[in-house]
Amino acid sequence: MNKKPSTRPDAESDHVALAEYRASIDNIDASLIYLMAERFKITEKVGEYKKEKGLPAASIDREQEQFDRMKKLAAEAGVDQEFMGKFLRFVIDEVIRRHERIKER
Amino acid sequence: MNKKPSTRPDAESDHVALAEYRASIDNIDASLIYLMAERFKITEKVGEYKKEKGLPAASIDREQEQFDRMKKLAAEAGVDQEFMGKFLRFVIDEVIRRHERIKER
Repeated sequence: MNKKPSTRPDAESDHVALAEYRASIDNIDASLIYLMAERFKITEKVGEYKKEKGLPAASIDREQEQFDRMKKLAAEAGVDQEFMGKFLRFVIDEVIRRHERIKER
Repeated sequence: MNKKPSTRPDAESDHVALAEYRASIDNIDASLIYLMAERFKITEKVGEYKKEKGLPAASIDREQEQFDRMKKLAAEAGVDQEFMGKFLRFVIDEVIRRHERIKER
């Protein structure tokens, strides 16, 4: 990057360390996006399968397993369990909405 | 797995294909959790840096860049942009909350 220093006294672009952190965050975000794409490809198949077999869009037993597993992994990875719980809920809710849409097709 | 078939007529455990999909989803979720752990390790450093340099917890310019980039990557990866937008917002809001807490320390 051949950026000229900004004339603003507190311009974030002057902060090299910040730019390096952000480059790593951007790499991680790209990985997250590609993983989410793969995850939805599989949950789409789950939705089709559930429709075919007449299974409900949501499964409380499966969700419980997912949350229990997530808590264990979050503890191992050193990431906040409460945040990861909200994160998983957010993703699962989207998946259930999609499964319901698949059933209505 | 040496599971006995369930006596419930519609037990999900009888569905081998579903179990295979779920095993892949579990692998992806483990990867997501470990990536999120790494992401928070970096944003924690960003928070400390911002505190030290007196930079604001949130940056509208940076966020705009992140959302623009996410849209491009989501299109390439074939994942819903609207969902990924909500996902990124959810993560960034948590990061800003943490940056604010770091400042108050």
